[in-house]
Amino acid sequence: MVYLTRKAEFSASHVYHNPAFSAEENLRVFGKCNNPNGHGHNYTLEVTVKGPIDATTGFVVDLKELKEVMHREVLDNMDHRFLNKEVAEFSGPQALIPTTENLAIVIWQRLAPKLKVAQLHRVRIYETPDLFADCYGEV
Amino acid sequence: MVYLTRKAEFSASHVYHNPAFSAEENLRVFGKCNNPNGHGHNYTLEVTVKGPIDATTGFVVDLKELKEVMHREVLDNMDHRFLNKEVAEFSGPQALIPTTENLAIVIWQRLAPKLKVAQLHRVRIYETPDLFADCYGEV
Amino acid sequence: MVYLTRKAEFSASHVYHNPAFSAEENLRVFGKCNNPNGHGHNYTLEVTVKGPIDATTGFVVDLKELKEVMHREVLDNMDHRFLNKEVAEFSGPQALIPTTENLAIVIWQRLAPKLKVAQLHRVRIYETPDLFADCYGEV
Amino acid sequence: MVYLTRKAEFSASHVYHNPAFSAEENLRVFGKCNNPNGHGHNYTLEVTVKGPIDATTGFVVDLKELKEVMHREVLDNMDHRFLNKEVAEFSGPQALIPTTENLAIVIWQRLAPKLKVAQLHRVRIYETPDLFADCYGEV
Amino acid sequence: MVYLTRKAEFSASHVYHNPAFSAEENLRVFGKCNNPNGHGHNYTLEVTVKGPIDATTGFVVDLKELKEVMHREVLDNMDHRFLNKEVAEFSGPQALIPTTENLAIVIWQRLAPKLKVAQLHRVRIYETPDLFADCYGEV
Amino acid sequence: MVYLTRKAEFSASHVYHNPAFSAEENLRVFGKCNNPNGHGHNYTLEVTVKGPIDATTGFVVDLKELKEVMHREVLDNMDHRFLNKEVAEFSGPQALIPTTENLAIVIWQRLAPKLKVAQLHRVRIYETPDLFADCYGEV
Repeated sequence: MVYLTRKAEFSASHVYHNPAFSAEENLRVFGKCNNPNGHGHNYTLEVTVKGPIDATTGFVVDLKELKEVMHREVLDNMDHRFLNKEVAEFSGPQALIPTTENLAIVIWQRLAPKLKVAQLHRVRIYETPDLFADCYGEV
Repeated sequence: MVYLTRKAEFSASHVYHNPAFSAEENLRVFGKCNNPNGHGHNYTLEVTVKGPIDATTGFVVDLKELKEVMHREVLDNMDHRFLNKEVAEFSGPQALIPTTENLAIVIWQRLAPKLKVAQLHRVRIYETPDLFADCYGEV
Repeated sequence: MVYLTRKAEFSASHVYHNPAFSAEENLRVFGKCNNPNGHGHNYTLEVTVKGPIDATTGFVVDLKELKEVMHREVLDNMDHRFLNKEVAEFSGPQALIPTTENLAIVIWQRLAPKLKVAQLHRVRIYETPDLFADCYGEV
Repeated sequence: MVYLTRKAEFSASHVYHNPAFSAEENLRVFGKCNNPNGHGHNYTLEVTVKGPIDATTGFVVDLKELKEVMHREVLDNMDHRFLNKEVAEFSGPQALIPTTENLAIVIWQRLAPKLKVAQLHRVRIYETPDLFADCYGEV
Repeated sequence: MVYLTRKAEFSASHVYHNPAFSAEENLRVFGKCNNPNGHGHNYTLEVTVKGPIDATTGFVVDLKELKEVMHREVLDNMDHRFLNKEVAEFSGPQALIPTTENLAIVIWQRLAPKLKVAQLHRVRIYETPDLFADCYGEV
Repeated sequence: MVYLTRKAEFSASHVYHNPAFSAEENLRVFGKCNNPNGHGHNYTLEVTVKGPIDATTGFVVDLKELKEVMHREVLDNMDHRFLNKEVAEFSGPQALIPTTENLAIVIWQRLAPKLKVAQLHRVRIYETPDLFADCYGEV
């Protein structure tokens, strides 16, 4: 059993705002992140899969396939986007607030059903080098 | 003569768009950066000053003053902002396109007249860990 | 269930010395770290909390509160200090030796009872980029 | 119970090739990594041991001993080497393909029986800053 | 006048050997780097160009063009290669020894004549995070 | 003409204090750095030498010699030391205040006369990842 982790980066903007809060409450809770114009980050995504090693290749997972899934399910949709306006889970009437925590969960939910052979173990997302969230799919 | 460099980080969003270009030309020249909703980055700013060392303090520049100038002239105005909408040089009819290159020049122009004692030597701005621009105030 | 990690840095000096050892034994066991004048490091602290996401904020923990606790319980007391002389757990007759391992445990013990809402999951402390210790509160 | 991690770096070259595959299959599965001349990496190795803290030293493990074991069992044999030609597990008729995953397992198998006092917890090996494998000795 | 720097990475292997030296002299001068099987590195290349900013784009250089030149002239030929066997300047009877210094010069000579609009200012190449060479085209 | 840079790290402690200042003035000018017990840092030293490439070795400078000079002249004397008490330039009646700026100059003065073949071009010293000083030997 080995765990393999692949990093990727994407750039996106977001705003923290809860429509059920008053303007004052939004500002108090979210501070500068409540700026309605949005602001942005270079996000670093780490995807960890686990499984036994295929003796014929030495791989837990074919990296080309892993990268292809990461691009199709996450990066193609989130890179160079305003998360609150262009990403389904963070827009519309049931929108989640695009915090680092919610991004970790959303990316887990997108990747977990699409990975074949290897099993998703952890999604880690850095919003800045000093702040990151991990999701292991626990409920 | 010694050169002292201080780093700071800020998060902002931007869009690349030239109103004199057609939609097709904007997309061809700027690609994903032309998304009108904007996208964002964790910018890293490095400010380098040069000068002789003050024998009574061992400093080229008082770091508290340098940090205060960097915050007042740059970070307070650009951090957690959409550059095209909220920063003077990148909004309005004479707006510059907020590329890494133009950011380096704008930050130089803001800092150079405000530094006392030490002389501004270089402004370096990273848009991502793999891309940065330097301005030495050359014309 | 999501895990959120916040990094912070502090600078401190320390010395490794066991008064129950002879001078020769101290030098043999601790080498250069036994220099009685002390030497120092830029420590990097990573604090990980875990918990469910608050649906109204998207947060596992209010970052402002987490940072406030980290400063009050750890950084305000350890930053720019000589650990053996100025930090309670590492000075006095019952002093622990301020190794990376003991720092991880001491910081865990300071933070765990003070965190509300979210639960402390891990304290990681880097003494240098090449050496770090983790404490999960296991006994 | 505390976990201590030590990093070390080594430079090596390798090639991915399965003699049971056709030339076409090798190229399809391994891509550029199938170049028979080999190519190389700066590997970063992280070794994590766990155990209680020795009250007389404040150490989970004597770092001098840990470094000595890491050098003798791994670095002296792999640094500045072509893994497929000069490292036993990756050469000869029973050779493993020197993927990041297999390196993690091989290093675990070399270190686990040689560590005294502390217990090996994890071997992490980075092939590049964006790709790493973890082995916890699970079977 | 602004300077723009783009980073890229490639993996390659090499060996240091001067056929005019005796075996003993090669070993004495080049140490572990004289291993005839080769060993490898993750090289980081930084290419800096300088020039005025194009007012219609905000660019010193079109990044797509810069990346295309870097790939065509350097990365496509050196990535996942054994420099002494597969790269013209480092193989054959007039071969240079593929040191970090010579790599910087060779990459300068490949890029300088191919860049349009902007002017090549500096080629920096890291062999490891702790060792790098700079070439400014000085003779 | 090529520039070669080698990094090295050392850990030291220091205090900022000018005996000609009053206690209040020392505290006002130096803040937390005025703690008489000292505090410490992981310093990163970058030494850059320049020169033509030796055609028989491909080197600007023999790295073994460069490292030997860096250890003998700087690291052996400063690593794991309290700079104000154990390093000549920062102790005694003519002591300089061990700021990052003064460290850069002192290290330049120690290295410049000892380097053979290649010429010292720059000494860079990081006190933290966010603060560094450069000395080019200018007067």
